[in-house]
Amino acid sequence: MKHKRKRHGTMEMRVHRRTEPGSPPGTIVPDPHEPQSDVQVFSYCKTDLVESRLPSFEQLAKMVATNEVTWINVDGLGNTRLIEALGEHFKLHRLALEDVVNVHQRSKVDQYADIMFIVLRMPHVPTEATGGRVTTEQLSIFAGPKFVITFQEGRPGDCFDRVRLRLREGATKLREAGPGYLVHALLDGVIDNYYPVLEGYAERLDYLEDAVLEAGSHVMDELHEVKADLLILRRAIWPLRETVASLSRDESTLFGESSRPYLRDCYDHVVQIVDLVETYREITADLRDLHMSSLSNRTNDIMRVLTIISTIFMPLTFIAGIYGMNFHTSSSRFNMPELDWEYGYLLCLAVMFVIAAGQMYYFYYRGWILPSFRARK
Amino acid sequence: MKHKRKRHGTMEMRVHRRTEPGSPPGTIVPDPHEPQSDVQVFSYCKTDLVESRLPSFEQLAKMVATNEVTWINVDGLGNTRLIEALGEHFKLHRLALEDVVNVHQRSKVDQYADIMFIVLRMPHVPTEATGGRVTTEQLSIFAGPKFVITFQEGRPGDCFDRVRLRLREGATKLREAGPGYLVHALLDGVIDNYYPVLEGYAERLDYLEDAVLEAGSHVMDELHEVKADLLILRRAIWPLRETVASLSRDESTLFGESSRPYLRDCYDHVVQIVDLVETYREITADLRDLHMSSLSNRTNDIMRVLTIISTIFMPLTFIAGIYGMNFHTSSSRFNMPELDWEYGYLLCLAVMFVIAAGQMYYFYYRGWILPSFRARK
Amino acid sequence: MKHKRKRHGTMEMRVHRRTEPGSPPGTIVPDPHEPQSDVQVFSYCKTDLVESRLPSFEQLAKMVATNEVTWINVDGLGNTRLIEALGEHFKLHRLALEDVVNVHQRSKVDQYADIMFIVLRMPHVPTEATGGRVTTEQLSIFAGPKFVITFQEGRPGDCFDRVRLRLREGATKLREAGPGYLVHALLDGVIDNYYPVLEGYAERLDYLEDAVLEAGSHVMDELHEVKADLLILRRAIWPLRETVASLSRDESTLFGESSRPYLRDCYDHVVQIVDLVETYREITADLRDLHMSSLSNRTNDIMRVLTIISTIFMPLTFIAGIYGMNFHTSSSRFNMPELDWEYGYLLCLAVMFVIAAGQMYYFYYRGWILPSFRARK
Amino acid sequence: MKHKRKRHGTMEMRVHRRTEPGSPPGTIVPDPHEPQSDVQVFSYCKTDLVESRLPSFEQLAKMVATNEVTWINVDGLGNTRLIEALGEHFKLHRLALEDVVNVHQRSKVDQYADIMFIVLRMPHVPTEATGGRVTTEQLSIFAGPKFVITFQEGRPGDCFDRVRLRLREGATKLREAGPGYLVHALLDGVIDNYYPVLEGYAERLDYLEDAVLEAGSHVMDELHEVKADLLILRRAIWPLRETVASLSRDESTLFGESSRPYLRDCYDHVVQIVDLVETYREITADLRDLHMSSLSNRTNDIMRVLTIISTIFMPLTFIAGIYGMNFHTSSSRFNMPELDWEYGYLLCLAVMFVIAAGQMYYFYYRGWILPSFRARK
Amino acid sequence: MKHKRKRHGTMEMRVHRRTEPGSPPGTIVPDPHEPQSDVQVFSYCKTDLVESRLPSFEQLAKMVATNEVTWINVDGLGNTRLIEALGEHFKLHRLALEDVVNVHQRSKVDQYADIMFIVLRMPHVPTEATGGRVTTEQLSIFAGPKFVITFQEGRPGDCFDRVRLRLREGATKLREAGPGYLVHALLDGVIDNYYPVLEGYAERLDYLEDAVLEAGSHVMDELHEVKADLLILRRAIWPLRETVASLSRDESTLFGESSRPYLRDCYDHVVQIVDLVETYREITADLRDLHMSSLSNRTNDIMRVLTIISTIFMPLTFIAGIYGMNFHTSSSRFNMPELDWEYGYLLCLAVMFVIAAGQMYYFYYRGWILPSFRARK
Repeated sequence: MKHKRKRHGTMEMRVHRRTEPGSPPGTIVPDPHEPQSDVQVFSYCKTDLVESRLPSFEQLAKMVATNEVTWINVDGLGNTRLIEALGEHFKLHRLALEDVVNVHQRSKVDQYADIMFIVLRMPHVPTEATGGRVTTEQLSIFAGPKFVITFQEGRPGDCFDRVRLRLREGATKLREAGPGYLVHALLDGVIDNYYPVLEGYAERLDYLEDAVLEAGSHVMDELHEVKADLLILRRAIWPLRETVASLSRDESTLFGESSRPYLRDCYDHVVQIVDLVETYREITADLRDLHMSSLSNRTNDIMRVLTIISTIFMPLTFIAGIYGMNFHTSSSRFNMPELDWEYGYLLCLAVMFVIAAGQMYYFYYRGWILPSFRARK
Repeated sequence: MKHKRKRHGTMEMRVHRRTEPGSPPGTIVPDPHEPQSDVQVFSYCKTDLVESRLPSFEQLAKMVATNEVTWINVDGLGNTRLIEALGEHFKLHRLALEDVVNVHQRSKVDQYADIMFIVLRMPHVPTEATGGRVTTEQLSIFAGPKFVITFQEGRPGDCFDRVRLRLREGATKLREAGPGYLVHALLDGVIDNYYPVLEGYAERLDYLEDAVLEAGSHVMDELHEVKADLLILRRAIWPLRETVASLSRDESTLFGESSRPYLRDCYDHVVQIVDLVETYREITADLRDLHMSSLSNRTNDIMRVLTIISTIFMPLTFIAGIYGMNFHTSSSRFNMPELDWEYGYLLCLAVMFVIAAGQMYYFYYRGWILPSFRARK
Repeated sequence: MKHKRKRHGTMEMRVHRRTEPGSPPGTIVPDPHEPQSDVQVFSYCKTDLVESRLPSFEQLAKMVATNEVTWINVDGLGNTRLIEALGEHFKLHRLALEDVVNVHQRSKVDQYADIMFIVLRMPHVPTEATGGRVTTEQLSIFAGPKFVITFQEGRPGDCFDRVRLRLREGATKLREAGPGYLVHALLDGVIDNYYPVLEGYAERLDYLEDAVLEAGSHVMDELHEVKADLLILRRAIWPLRETVASLSRDESTLFGESSRPYLRDCYDHVVQIVDLVETYREITADLRDLHMSSLSNRTNDIMRVLTIISTIFMPLTFIAGIYGMNFHTSSSRFNMPELDWEYGYLLCLAVMFVIAAGQMYYFYYRGWILPSFRARK
Repeated sequence: MKHKRKRHGTMEMRVHRRTEPGSPPGTIVPDPHEPQSDVQVFSYCKTDLVESRLPSFEQLAKMVATNEVTWINVDGLGNTRLIEALGEHFKLHRLALEDVVNVHQRSKVDQYADIMFIVLRMPHVPTEATGGRVTTEQLSIFAGPKFVITFQEGRPGDCFDRVRLRLREGATKLREAGPGYLVHALLDGVIDNYYPVLEGYAERLDYLEDAVLEAGSHVMDELHEVKADLLILRRAIWPLRETVASLSRDESTLFGESSRPYLRDCYDHVVQIVDLVETYREITADLRDLHMSSLSNRTNDIMRVLTIISTIFMPLTFIAGIYGMNFHTSSSRFNMPELDWEYGYLLCLAVMFVIAAGQMYYFYYRGWILPSFRARK
Repeated sequence: MKHKRKRHGTMEMRVHRRTEPGSPPGTIVPDPHEPQSDVQVFSYCKTDLVESRLPSFEQLAKMVATNEVTWINVDGLGNTRLIEALGEHFKLHRLALEDVVNVHQRSKVDQYADIMFIVLRMPHVPTEATGGRVTTEQLSIFAGPKFVITFQEGRPGDCFDRVRLRLREGATKLREAGPGYLVHALLDGVIDNYYPVLEGYAERLDYLEDAVLEAGSHVMDELHEVKADLLILRRAIWPLRETVASLSRDESTLFGESSRPYLRDCYDHVVQIVDLVETYREITADLRDLHMSSLSNRTNDIMRVLTIISTIFMPLTFIAGIYGMNFHTSSSRFNMPELDWEYGYLLCLAVMFVIAAGQMYYFYYRGWILPSFRARK
């Protein structure tokens, strides 16, 4: 039954580069399996907000010209032509676009002329659909003087619903500030999304701790799954730490001096998440040790029962065997005269009893019997 | 019985951010489960000391204006409105206030204008109430030019009773010096509180060393608990080390040149505590190895007993079985003529004895018998 | 059968320096086992491309003089005289040539006057011929103002086929740019070749994960092979990281300012590969733990069956043995009067049944029976 | 017997701060268990040497005034008043004096005005009295322009006997140089004392290697002791390394330029000791692995014997049991007619022999028998 | 037999300082066990070479005055007076001479005035005489403006034979260059000597890999030996790395700018050796894991055989035991009427067969039988 359950998660570990070795850098190879792109645009200034879906390039150009900030969110990377067109229109570097499409990048920040390119990994809370395994999705951000373009892999749902709400609400700090603050809000949303994912693992570890203590038999498989998931999260979060650190050290004009504390706050969160992931990994390792030791302990318990039983009954059965031999008592007076003794049988039983009692005492003395009373403090 | 004992401590590992992903930074979300805030104020200069409980904001303003230093200690974070009001009155940064309420911060120092914000984790000596597990509480300190505001989570008891005593005593260095020295005294109190906690674990490890050597059966569960607790302490103390180090390197005006040795002293203590925690962790790991090895050793002992007994009695029982067969001696002269021999029975017993003695000698020669005399040096 | 399979791969670990200890540095000792050198030349400028095989030195000199870039690829190091002649003609440093011939160098960059010397390790996708083990080949690159010379070990196949294609296509950026861009293209080809190799291991780990969960018996040997291969890859890729990092920091004229992003792109890829190799190593270690634990688990299962069976049948057999004794009931009324009782046999069977049932209940209570229903959650 | 042996050494791990959390820094709390202080003074210049025991403060003042260097060695920290008086007289900082009394400091150097404060841990060669466990003692050194004050914990014996001899001898470099050279001589004495301690452990590890190979049964307990002791030494020597490094980088006037090589020499020794301690720790870990593996090996050996014996005799006993059944041959011609056959018994024995021989061959073929001849190369 | 083999190698780990703790630094204590010193001098310039054995000091002085470079090689440290005389004549620092005699130094470089002092560890290929264990010998080099003095421990053989040959050959670069180049040649010789030693271990690991897979029984002891030897090599090579690195960074006049590439080459070799040693250590650890797992695997195999046999024959023997009971069928019609049935015996055998077959099927179903066909993929 257990092996029928579809395993997931290792897919995350596989990195498939679609561009062939030796291709010129900046080659954008479409992946037919990627979902079609869905484009959503928020164009806003302090007083105005335009929301639009799949606009034409003229509309886009007009929005960017009119408003302070235009956020173009591309959901799904299946439409390579659209991505190339966006790249040309906004003068995005081809190497960066190649990274957008090859969705197994580590988090990083690159500066191309006046456009900043940020790659993040966005975690998804494990669901039934992913077999209870964590998955991460690549989020690529281009931030220019008047626009922010984000590319997602196109799985349903992201962590920006509250950002969209704050944009629509109006008169928030987000509407007044420039594209830097929007980038910060997106970063913050991604980072904060790690917390519920990690909380899920804290709960699972808690449950597993109980399971190990109660010696459940599939604990190890589950521990292995949790360990692998934490490895995925770790691979996502460590480079993110470097990324946010380099952002907060950054001297570019995108983030002004006033947004420094906000980036530092982001950085603190990432460090805390790193800390949690490492802590959970250590707990998992400890639980594995505990499980192994409890296995050994149980082997010992089982062995002890077997040994006690064998050691007691083997000599007894041997004695019974002796007197089950068919030596003809009539042929010789040395042939088992005990069989004719008046108390022969009782004596025989008495000897057996003495042997059994002696062994019981010895085992009690060695602490093999009633371990719950003796070996415990 | 054992599994009935309420487990604690893993709660410490769980970090729950109450602010939803994507919320604007600086959102202060109240936790209905937090205890109501209790405010205690010490306002003092060299000659005067005013102690007050839950004062109004006007009273507070007057105290700050009159005296050199005013220490406002808020115990319990349930009263969000009070915290926001304090924040507005003393111009505390909203990001810092968010950290005060989200009580799973790592130790850190942040400088906002002329106010320094310090986060510490304060350990509580394990008690029955916490199931013998260590717990830590967040202490947030705001230090301004004339005031120090501390926020505690509101668990009963803290480690500042002697600081209060020294304030009340009068004419101590603490009363004469500024807010920097008070911050140092609070820091020192928190750091020194780690010593009794660690002493408890030293004792427990000592007891566990005995238990492992005497092969107690629940040693591993306890070792696991100690290990998890040390992990909690480690997560509390490592960032504290960075915090104190950055405080002692700090160039701000809060701490004068003369308090440098005191901060260095604090730093030495933290380093010593880090050292102890790491040492105890290594000892725990060593004890686990020792325990695993002693388990294997005992399995071997048990197996040896079983094997000796089986190996001796199986051939004997087999021989007894042979002569328990009912071949009709009358039908054929080849059918067990031994049964009619005069010394058949005695010979049979003699053969059995020789086999048993031979095996005993072999086991003695292999060192399986009397291991206490042979295998020991 | 299994041990007949020719093992490979450890050869990779062996480093044999052919120059005797104490020899003057720069001694080039030929290895008679190396394949004969095959020389292939691409000489090109923006408008022209000359391809030639095994040209004379005069032809070479002319090509270098005429065209912008001349790429001389030497495949096979058996022809020491040719290598020395090339070295003299292009003024390559003897120490570098010694490294070319001693093919177990770590990746590195050295600058000799205006010639840059780069050593790389090029991975080969595991095939049947290598027993399914990964192998790496040394690629040495000399880059001068107008030429690029590469030395390969001469195994069939390399990862530059697409580079050659791009050269032949004409009007590509590669044809227009200088030798620095060619070096970058070669580097890129080598680095990109790690991806398919690693993908193979991802697949193998995936399969092994299944195998461990299904408790296959040769899992450990295979895990060991994968681990050793990852060690080989790790030894190849870590120094490559340093190499590419130092190239991208390099101030020499070979790479202009415009190729900086391309080198940074290379560096990102190398870092990602490093990350993957380390991740796969961790997964391998986790799988080993899982395998060890499943072994222990199975030992426990087997022991449990043995113990249950023994514990049930030993007492029963003992009782049967008792009543198989031949005490003469006629000699004494104490000698097994049970044998004559009317319900003696049935009583005896009943006692046996009660004992067996009691034990079954005890084992069920201890959770030794039906672990699949009880111990699982 | 074994558990009766008094365990020692873990005491070393316990750090008890006598000052209560929250006390003002610099509080000196006497420990009633500390031995009474014994004061020994050496006051010397190039031509003169005064030795004195427990002098008055006037005598001390005079000695310091007259001679170049005065070395006051306080042995035992029980006399707090004396320590405070010395502190006041020589203007020693209270924080340093607190560290003198709280004898679990890590090695360190602090500079207070013109007085340098050094803390070291001095190892004692394990003796019967300490249960064969290593112990370390705190040595605190104050070095001023004309005096050196050392505080020891007061255990009998120190490592300065040869320094005293060199002082008494006269006309040595020690008598001519200033207090810096005396400090160096004391440092050197402490560091050199680690060598005999480590040699003891090298011998013990050598003996343990033999014991593991011969499979002694208490090896693991001893390995654990050695490991714990090496942990103690490690905790003593690592901070010492930092201390000596910072001394040799120090720009203060205490050590002149000419004593630089001597401090570098000290540093080399400390690094070598660090290296040895780490090496011994690794050897200990390796021996533990070896021991665990030899335990597993022996379990296998024992199991093999048990299995061979059981597997051979069980079928045989079963066959004997068959023919021990009492089916009435007279009631039916199907009831064990074999019992009446002429060669029934011999046939039965022959069948048993064939079964046993077949199994023996199978076990020999599997390599379970005569492992010493087959499995060894 | 095995334990009779003399163990070696751990001696390497023992560091015995002959100077007593507290002695004045620079004390040279002779070791009576050291071999007598043998002095060999090469004095040369471009055109001339003088070779001499055990010259007088006047001869030495003349040689140094006449020729460009004089290399004095002292083989054996038993002659302390000679070492002291050399030290005085060439103004070698006493601290350095102390290090020459205390032959357990880590590699290092020290500069005393215009004399450079280098310590190296020279490995010896394992031979029968050293029990197949690696040993290292200390080489101390003093390099002055016109002379190079080397001290070896005096074991037969060194790695400079080819250097001597190159000196005698004449007209080599070595004869033309100064003492710096000679030092480089010696360094190079020592470093290159690590390669054959490591090749030996590569071969041994290769053989051990086979042995582990074939489950040899003394694999673990051998792995332990290899591990200990690699630890020795590691302790020798890591400090050498630092030493060579600091030499190549060195600004002194000994090595001119032109010898920079040669030192870099040395450094590359050392890094490669470090890399190999670490790789071999990892392989050793992996092999240990593999061995442990194969041990567990075999335990499982053995247990399975035991369990199958026991589980099959115990019930059968019990049934046979039942019908071996002597209940008097004549006393009661309930007493084993089966014994009189016509097909009683056959039925009994049939029941036994059914039980055995059922169990076989169950074991087959659980995969305990024929693991080679089922559990393998």
